[in-house]
Amino acid sequence: MKFKRIVLIMAMEDEARSIIHELNLIHKGKLLSPLPMAFYEGKYKSLNVDLVTSGKCYKHNVDHIGPQAAILNTASAIGQLHPDLIINPGTAGGFMSAGGNIGDVYLSYPMICYHDRRIPLPGFDAYGVGSYYCFDTREIANSLGLKTGVVSTGSSLDYIQKDLDMIKSYGGVVKEMEAASIAWVADLYKIPFFAIKSITDLVDNSTPTEEEFLKNLESASFALSREIIRVIDFLANHQE
Amino acid sequence: MKFKRIVLIMAMEDEARSIIHELNLIHKGKLLSPLPMAFYEGKYKSLNVDLVTSGKCYKHNVDHIGPQAAILNTASAIGQLHPDLIINPGTAGGFMSAGGNIGDVYLSYPMICYHDRRIPLPGFDAYGVGSYYCFDTREIANSLGLKTGVVSTGSSLDYIQKDLDMIKSYGGVVKEMEAASIAWVADLYKIPFFAIKSITDLVDNSTPTEEEFLKNLESASFALSREIIRVIDFLANHQE
Repeated sequence: MKFKRIVLIMAMEDEARSIIHELNLIHKGKLLSPLPMAFYEGKYKSLNVDLVTSGKCYKHNVDHIGPQAAILNTASAIGQLHPDLIINPGTAGGFMSAGGNIGDVYLSYPMICYHDRRIPLPGFDAYGVGSYYCFDTREIANSLGLKTGVVSTGSSLDYIQKDLDMIKSYGGVVKEMEAASIAWVADLYKIPFFAIKSITDLVDNSTPTEEEFLKNLESASFALSREIIRVIDFLANHQE
Repeated sequence: MKFKRIVLIMAMEDEARSIIHELNLIHKGKLLSPLPMAFYEGKYKSLNVDLVTSGKCYKHNVDHIGPQAAILNTASAIGQLHPDLIINPGTAGGFMSAGGNIGDVYLSYPMICYHDRRIPLPGFDAYGVGSYYCFDTREIANSLGLKTGVVSTGSSLDYIQKDLDMIKSYGGVVKEMEAASIAWVADLYKIPFFAIKSITDLVDNSTPTEEEFLKNLESASFALSREIIRVIDFLANHQE
C-alpha cells in the first residue's frame, strides 16, 4: 500500500465539513472553473490528502449529489490532481436484514454495483449493473474493526421494489448515490478506489429514508469523519 | 445562429454509423486516452463537425450507454474540442398518447429532465428532475418539419410507473438515456445544446421496449442520420 496522493471525492458539503475540519484541509476555490467542484488541499503525515466536493447547483442551491455529478467530479479530480488512490467517503442506507445499524461504517468490498440501470438487452444487462471491483479493503477493515460489503449505487434517495430485488441479487449491504460512478472512472484510469460509507438510515425498516436521513446526517457524518481519518492514518503508517 | 464548431455526442456505435458515413467523418482514434470515447472529425460546408461516441465497455463489450458515460463523453469533448454548439443525436422511446409514431424525429424544446432521480428532500427534489433549458430549436423544427418536445432521461431502458408519472408531470414526449446529462455539462460551460431523437419504440403500447428497440433500431438510425444532416445543413446555411 504505497500511496502518496489520496483524493477524497465527496458529494455533500454537510458530509465533508467535519473531515475538512479534522484534517485541516485548506479551501483552494473551484477545482476547475467553470465547473462547480470545490477543492480542499492538505497533508497527513507523509501523504498528500486532497478532497473535492461536487459543489452546489446554481439553479437549485443544493449540493450536486448523485451519479452524474460524481462522474464529473472524479474525471476532473483525476485530470487536475493525479491521485494514486481515490476514496469516496459518504453517508448511505443500510439493511437490517444484513445486520446493519445506524452509525455503522462500511468499507466497500469486493465490488460496487448499480441497482437502477435496467437494460434488458444482451450484454447491456450486465453492463448496467456494472460490478466494478474495488481495492481490497479487508486488511484495513480487520485492523480498524470496520465492516466490509457490496455497495450499491442509484440515482434516487428512495427506492422501488426492483431496486431492492437488484441489490439482493448481488448481496448489496449499502445503498447510496455515487460510489459506482466514481469506481467506473477510477477503473478506466486504473487508479485504486474504495468507498467508505456511514449508515444514516435503514432501507428495510418502516421509516421513510428521507426522515431518517435528515435526522441522522450529522451523527453519521461525525462517525464518517472519525473513521476516514483512522483509515488515512492506517495508510500513512503502512507505506511499505 | 453563428456556430463554427459543432460536436455531436452519441452513445451507440450503431446509431452513429450512418451519420459518420454520410458526413464522411474520419476516425481519429480515442478522444482522450485511456478513456474509451471514439473521436470522428469532419467538415460540412463552413462548419467543423466532430462526433464523439462513448466507446465500448472493455468488460462487457457493449457500447457505453446511459447518463454516466454521457457525462464523461461531454466533459472530455468540451475539454478537447471546444465546441460552440453541442448536439446529441440518438434513438428514443415515444408516446402514443402524445401523438408519437415510430420513425418520428424530435428536436428537444424547451427543456430536458430526468425521470428517475427521486430525491424527496427540500430543494433536492427539483434538482433531481433537473429541468435543463436547451437551445431554442423551434425555427429549425418549423423549417424542416420536425417535431419539438420535452426530452426525458433515465438510466434504464425499461420503465416503472413512477418514471411515467414523472414524465407526465413535466409533459415529456421523448424517453431516452443521455440528453439530460449532456445538457447539464453543456449548461455548466454555457455552451448551447439540443438533442435530436428518432423514435424506435412507443413506451405506452403493449410491446416491451427492448423488442421494439431492436426491431426498429436500424430504420430509426437511418431517419436520425437523414434528419441530423438536414439540421446541420440548415445551420451551415444560416450563419448570420
